Amino acid sequence: MQMPEKTKDFENPTKVYLDHNATTPVAEEILSGLPIIARIWGNPSSIHWAGRGPKSILREARSSVAEILGGVSSQEIIFTSGGSESNSCVIRGIFDLQVQAKSGEKLFARNEYITSNVEHPSILKSFQWIEKRGAIVHYLPVNIKGEIDLAQYQSLLSEKTALVSIMMANNETGTIFPTQKLAKLAHEVGAYFHCDGVQALGKISLNLTKIEVDFASFSAHKIGAMKGVGVLYAKRGSPVEPLVIGGGQERQRRGGTENTLGIWALGVMAKRLSAPGFSVAEYFPKVQELRNYFETRVLAEVSEVKVTGSETPRLPNTSSLVLTKVDGEVLLMSLDLMGFAVSTGAACSSGSPEPSPVLISMGLTRAQAQNSLRVSLGRETNKEQIDRFIEALKLTIVRLRNLDSELNPSPEVTATGASHV
Amino acid sequence: MQMPEKTKDFENPTKVYLDHNATTPVAEEILSGLPIIARIWGNPSSIHWAGRGPKSILREARSSVAEILGGVSSQEIIFTSGGSESNSCVIRGIFDLQVQAKSGEKLFARNEYITSNVEHPSILKSFQWIEKRGAIVHYLPVNIKGEIDLAQYQSLLSEKTALVSIMMANNETGTIFPTQKLAKLAHEVGAYFHCDGVQALGKISLNLTKIEVDFASFSAHKIGAMKGVGVLYAKRGSPVEPLVIGGGQERQRRGGTENTLGIWALGVMAKRLSAPGFSVAEYFPKVQELRNYFETRVLAEVSEVKVTGSETPRLPNTSSLVLTKVDGEVLLMSLDLMGFAVSTGAACSSGSPEPSPVLISMGLTRAQAQNSLRVSLGRETNKEQIDRFIEALKLTIVRLRNLDSELNPSPEVTATGASHV
Repeated sequence: MQMPEKTKDFENPTKVYLDHNATTPVAEEILSGLPIIARIWGNPSSIHWAGRGPKSILREARSSVAEILGGVSSQEIIFTSGGSESNSCVIRGIFDLQVQAKSGEKLFARNEYITSNVEHPSILKSFQWIEKRGAIVHYLPVNIKGEIDLAQYQSLLSEKTALVSIMMANNETGTIFPTQKLAKLAHEVGAYFHCDGVQALGKISLNLTKIEVDFASFSAHKIGAMKGVGVLYAKRGSPVEPLVIGGGQERQRRGGTENTLGIWALGVMAKRLSAPGFSVAEYFPKVQELRNYFETRVLAEVSEVKVTGSETPRLPNTSSLVLTKVDGEVLLMSLDLMGFAVSTGAACSSGSPEPSPVLISMGLTRAQAQNSLRVSLGRETNKEQIDRFIEALKLTIVRLRNLDSELNPSPEVTATGASHV
Repeated sequence: MQMPEKTKDFENPTKVYLDHNATTPVAEEILSGLPIIARIWGNPSSIHWAGRGPKSILREARSSVAEILGGVSSQEIIFTSGGSESNSCVIRGIFDLQVQAKSGEKLFARNEYITSNVEHPSILKSFQWIEKRGAIVHYLPVNIKGEIDLAQYQSLLSEKTALVSIMMANNETGTIFPTQKLAKLAHEVGAYFHCDGVQALGKISLNLTKIEVDFASFSAHKIGAMKGVGVLYAKRGSPVEPLVIGGGQERQRRGGTENTLGIWALGVMAKRLSAPGFSVAEYFPKVQELRNYFETRVLAEVSEVKVTGSETPRLPNTSSLVLTKVDGEVLLMSLDLMGFAVSTGAACSSGSPEPSPVLISMGLTRAQAQNSLRVSLGRETNKEQIDRFIEALKLTIVRLRNLDSELNPSPEVTATGASHV
């Protein structure tokens, strides 16, 4: 079987991938296991021999995922088709349960919802969806550092709050939110708390038993497994109204024949998140050091650049830059031609002419948001790649700024001189 | 990588799989391609080099699926996580659009829905879901042959009908419904028509351009591709309200990063459905001949057996038997011990102690439904396997009936003597 046209870029050592928040390379262990595990093709619901292998794959993966999320119960793990499905399921589900709730039930007369302005589109659009159908949704702003105002959050919480959904870490800036504290405050008024943990999993250590959220969403393809699989964690007692209605799979919480191959891969990668040589504890400092090296050099060697969200706790792999007078989209395409894969924001909204809503929400101007670049490192990223990337970045910035100066004559700009704005 | 425990059954030539309506073996072409295509791991939404390979995989698969469904437009193909999601999306989506509809809009004041009693659980439960929330749902019965009464169907159709959903072919009996006629009648009153085509795809020829449905659902794992991928066909102009809300994927109709590997496999298998040596046209008569050979021998060599739904057009691979005084579940487990994988009904409801609702709906008694067995052949099924299966079936039936006689003494029964009841 040959598909040289499509695979060649992925085999090319001169290509450098620095967009790990969009997706991650499928791990070698998964690649080699795929044709073996795909032979265990039975339907896990079948009660004959062909169902037993797939059923045991599901059981093992569920146990590995439960373990890595902080030793939660396997019964609290629901496999879905991805982070967006998990997010949609919780938000639409709680809204539906609230609409159906009768006097005396927990969700009765709780018609208010709280989220942040910087959530993933699947969260924001799900809230817009329920808002259009009668829910009252509060969108918390963040400040220029990416932080939520806790006093403002508390002032919105009340006995009318049904659900709060605030992400663990932002996909564009890497900002880490104080999930444990946010969840505790929500619980004090009797509201459910959901967090989108898609970007956090595998990058920072994460313990759902400790942070005590009611729901959390995760995605397999952000940790070296395949696209098409996600997790919805639902704490025992937290109500799950199925989004995909089907047979009795996932304890009646998610219908449809299980994606056994994808779930197997997720289980393997979940297990590796605590394995020597691959664990989050080893990954974190190594990647952070490389990210910091990158930012230090860029700030020293490129003029008029600033790092967004660097004053607050951040994911170790993410760097969000604003490069004055450099259009992010043009920069991305120029770097792409040189083999570097970076992003101007979330991949989900790529192609959109609008500047990143996340950066705008943080208080950046439209121009700043349009001049932004997201660099997200991965486990396989090395210093040599970062060095090559910095050289390419400097070269491209000079070219684009010179072009900009020719089109819009103004005081000279160069690629040298640090800026810590 | 070794997983002998779980793979050994699937590699064992003495095991015979006769449960293809539950799921199908992953094709060799897919198994060999998996580790190559999984290397094209980029996010299709990315606009740099890593997004281009995945994007082209999606484009090719979409085109292959559109072609095999009767040369429909690629834009009418929405990739989902499976048949259940496609079904849920249409039923919940049309209901939501109807609830939101304003005076003058097509769905305004159309609060009635029509389906059949013998649909897949994802259809029936989705309708129950909207029924609980205010929809009026009519469940059409079928007769003992599995047929819908067209006069009754017409009497239910009115200008209040929003949506009709009737499957192309039944998963348990194989009964093929007159989709083109049913759709035409629905359209005459201005209703949308959806059909669950999951069991039909790959087994009978299928042309959506000709039968003119508005929506149709399909599943990848029923045609030799992997679990976790499905299709929602939505005819141009038919409104799709997203179920999974996320980024702008699938032209804003289904959010979430695309399962590129699974979609690739579906595309390959869709293409093969018209390829020499594998096409539906070649498969159909070959499998039907083998199924008929099986039924002829069983009816001749086993007493007190009847074939359900054999008088109406059926899928070529499906045989639904009622074996008097033989508990289907016990028979299934006994055959399993001898290496044969069969079913008592849909895999989705396996483990349920209730007899098949489909067979009960057709007018079978509880006892008959409890004495039922579903045998569904596949492309790789051969005569030698069928012969071995018939011998095992005969042996097991004699044993179980003798046991039954000992427990419930009654006139002697044997495994010989034909019954065409």
